[in-house]
Amino acid sequence: LIPLRIEQLEALRAIVGASGIRTDDVAGTLDSGINESNLDAGVVLFPETLEHVQSIVRYCNSQSISIVPHGGRTGISGGAESSIGQVVVQTTRMCGILSFDEDAGTAVVDAGITLEQLQTAVHSHGLSVGIDLAARGTATLGGMVSTNAGGTEAFRHGVMRHRVLGLEAVLPDGAVFDDLKQVAKANERFDIKPLLIGAEGTLGIVTKVALNLVPLASGRITALASCPTVADALRLFRRCRLSPGAELLCVEIMWPDYARTTAEELGKPSLLEFALEPDSLFVILDVASGSGDSGREHFEQILARAFDAQEITNAVVAKNERERNDFWLVRDESFLCDRRYPHGFWYDISVPHRCLDEYSRQLFRAIHDIHPDFKIFLFGHLGDGNLHLTISAGRPMSEFEETVEQAVYGGLRAMGGSFSAEHGIGTHKRAALVRHGCAAKLEIMRAIKQMFDPNNIMNPAKVL
Amino acid sequence: LIPLRIEQLEALRAIVGASGIRTDDVAGTLDSGINESNLDAGVVLFPETLEHVQSIVRYCNSQSISIVPHGGRTGISGGAESSIGQVVVQTTRMCGILSFDEDAGTAVVDAGITLEQLQTAVHSHGLSVGIDLAARGTATLGGMVSTNAGGTEAFRHGVMRHRVLGLEAVLPDGAVFDDLKQVAKANERFDIKPLLIGAEGTLGIVTKVALNLVPLASGRITALASCPTVADALRLFRRCRLSPGAELLCVEIMWPDYARTTAEELGKPSLLEFALEPDSLFVILDVASGSGDSGREHFEQILARAFDAQEITNAVVAKNERERNDFWLVRDESFLCDRRYPHGFWYDISVPHRCLDEYSRQLFRAIHDIHPDFKIFLFGHLGDGNLHLTISAGRPMSEFEETVEQAVYGGLRAMGGSFSAEHGIGTHKRAALVRHGCAAKLEIMRAIKQMFDPNNIMNPAKVL
Repeated sequence: LIPLRIEQLEALRAIVGASGIRTDDVAGTLDSGINESNLDAGVVLFPETLEHVQSIVRYCNSQSISIVPHGGRTGISGGAESSIGQVVVQTTRMCGILSFDEDAGTAVVDAGITLEQLQTAVHSHGLSVGIDLAARGTATLGGMVSTNAGGTEAFRHGVMRHRVLGLEAVLPDGAVFDDLKQVAKANERFDIKPLLIGAEGTLGIVTKVALNLVPLASGRITALASCPTVADALRLFRRCRLSPGAELLCVEIMWPDYARTTAEELGKPSLLEFALEPDSLFVILDVASGSGDSGREHFEQILARAFDAQEITNAVVAKNERERNDFWLVRDESFLCDRRYPHGFWYDISVPHRCLDEYSRQLFRAIHDIHPDFKIFLFGHLGDGNLHLTISAGRPMSEFEETVEQAVYGGLRAMGGSFSAEHGIGTHKRAALVRHGCAAKLEIMRAIKQMFDPNNIMNPAKVL
Repeated sequence: LIPLRIEQLEALRAIVGASGIRTDDVAGTLDSGINESNLDAGVVLFPETLEHVQSIVRYCNSQSISIVPHGGRTGISGGAESSIGQVVVQTTRMCGILSFDEDAGTAVVDAGITLEQLQTAVHSHGLSVGIDLAARGTATLGGMVSTNAGGTEAFRHGVMRHRVLGLEAVLPDGAVFDDLKQVAKANERFDIKPLLIGAEGTLGIVTKVALNLVPLASGRITALASCPTVADALRLFRRCRLSPGAELLCVEIMWPDYARTTAEELGKPSLLEFALEPDSLFVILDVASGSGDSGREHFEQILARAFDAQEITNAVVAKNERERNDFWLVRDESFLCDRRYPHGFWYDISVPHRCLDEYSRQLFRAIHDIHPDFKIFLFGHLGDGNLHLTISAGRPMSEFEETVEQAVYGGLRAMGGSFSAEHGIGTHKRAALVRHGCAAKLEIMRAIKQMFDPNNIMNPAKVL
């Protein structure tokens, strides 16, 4: 690990200006995100224009300095880790809305705008980004493109890959990939954009994004239901999704250990008392309320039919915003399980619905067989089968890591699922990618990286 | 052009069996589609299994025989053209539904199933493919993937690229690309699938497709409205799209020359008499009716408000299925304009909404300046800005082809549109692709073709 030389730092300073480079107490004064080594490079550049980015990339390429692109540093898979001798290129000073087409529902933005800034701008026009996630105040659109962000609305609007109409990016040789389409239909032979989406900065630096927005749902009613089985929860999902006049916005599932642990840690175990059976699953449903009370009445009728069909054993509809927030806190505060049961293994997987019931039963059996002290804290986005889970005995158990991983990942590929749903590969899942990926695909991926970046300067440690 | 040798035909026959190869009067007994040279190869193979496809590809690669993959041969850009010495590989005997997940709304199908077969199977479960097009009875899902099919619902559900969850394909070296994900979230670094989508068979042969289905709208009400300007039509679109409780399914626009010519050729000019102004634009709107009469009343209220806002000068709501079909015939029977004004130039472009009014005015001026005899027959999918147009003086005018093309395509890229919206590049638009594409992207495309298919055996004449 050799630090950059003075003249290299001076050359970079000449590109971005004195205010565009940080080489001082970087990690001490910038938020490194969840991963402290994100800022280990100790050099952070803040380009303000496309030309800045091009000049940085060209210079770094000529000097074999590798680049780690950063957005809001809210990723949790290690895709933004950097080290001495590298430079971090942070796009947050390029943060404008470049065009907004209210009729079409499209927007072109700089890569560094945050999700929340964009949401605020478009909500007042009755439009939504179509993707929402907890890090909205910090996550940038460029970072969301590079990590192919998912979140709670993916069963309706897809993931970032499905929302991007066009991209501008600086490729590892400094060339501009200029494909800022603002239309859904553009058949111009091989589509290259999707390679950059989810590439975690290994193929280039995203500088502009054209997005397809969606109509904003009006109002929101939240219910918390208890379901006997996963199969029941899926039937409930389908009922809500297909009921005419109801617009299902979010549907989240929690297994009992997860929900009861977070509710207890929140000091609000009474939230779950409505579920009389101790082994109930919990499902949170958000539906659009529309205007007036008819939306709520309609939703309550749907829940009543679900009760009659024994898909749910009980349900409560939030009476106000405070209750609604409480339901969602039980879902969102996953770190509370980790606090009570530290040293856990984390996973982020996708399971097709038709396999979800059997997969989850099998997983509980397999993990129990590995060690009876292991607990599984399991929750996720029911609509798209994306499960988040922590497996922990509350104490270091690293000798079981490989066996546990095999129990979680084994079979996912054959059933059409994924060992890596929305958090990305980063550094944490490189080994799993090689073990669980398709051989022909891995070979193509290596060839593509070589083709785009023969000098391997773009986020090199994150490649296969 | 050297025909295949007897021993080569025998080797191919050994792979697919006697019933799996046609070398006789192929063009005389198979439907060649719109393009008669699709079957010029004179050799058509009908694989029934993945292994058949692999063996064909490996053998052809070893013999430097090039392959033209065919689905239903409904494309109109020449992507399926073949010639002596090539073999056509037609996937229509691989046509099963391999799995169907009703709760999740996903299906895995063989590449050779037709859109209509799949629609029939899923509609009864309250689900829809999310893409519809006129060639539904013949177009195969594999062909729709390879051409990235669009159609009338793209403003709601995207194009084929947005509906595909997973793919299986045989690559030019015979390796199987096996990425049959059935989940929306799968972040496994570079996504390779999108390269195959829209590649028109130049990177491999699609053998299986996993699809994300959408809820099926219940019922359908159709209105035909007259609008003073494009800007008014766009305001009407936005009103219908964002009105709570209305579900806009299709929105099509026709300029007056187009609508009046097809209506006259159909012998039904009275259909358009409701529009009192001769230069009105026409907009067809389909909305979901839901159950009961409330959907229709609600729609009529929306149209009344559009009238008050002067977005429309008049509108008629179809009273029955016959009237509804008549409205759509005016839109669909574009060949009637070509019959009355033959020798026209055809285009298929995407224009962002915010540019649509100005672009269309400018186009009429420019074409009139080129030659006052030229007429423009302009219509398309308003929701996504995809316009189809024929420019014709009713007689051969090929000396103007280049000037007219420049008038149509010029400026589209800078405004974020596309010179090739949904029909693909095929052979017809190869030159335009080079003229109107991004240089950095073209270079990447060439490198990708070289990487996938170094021997250039897969649909070679359709590459850049």
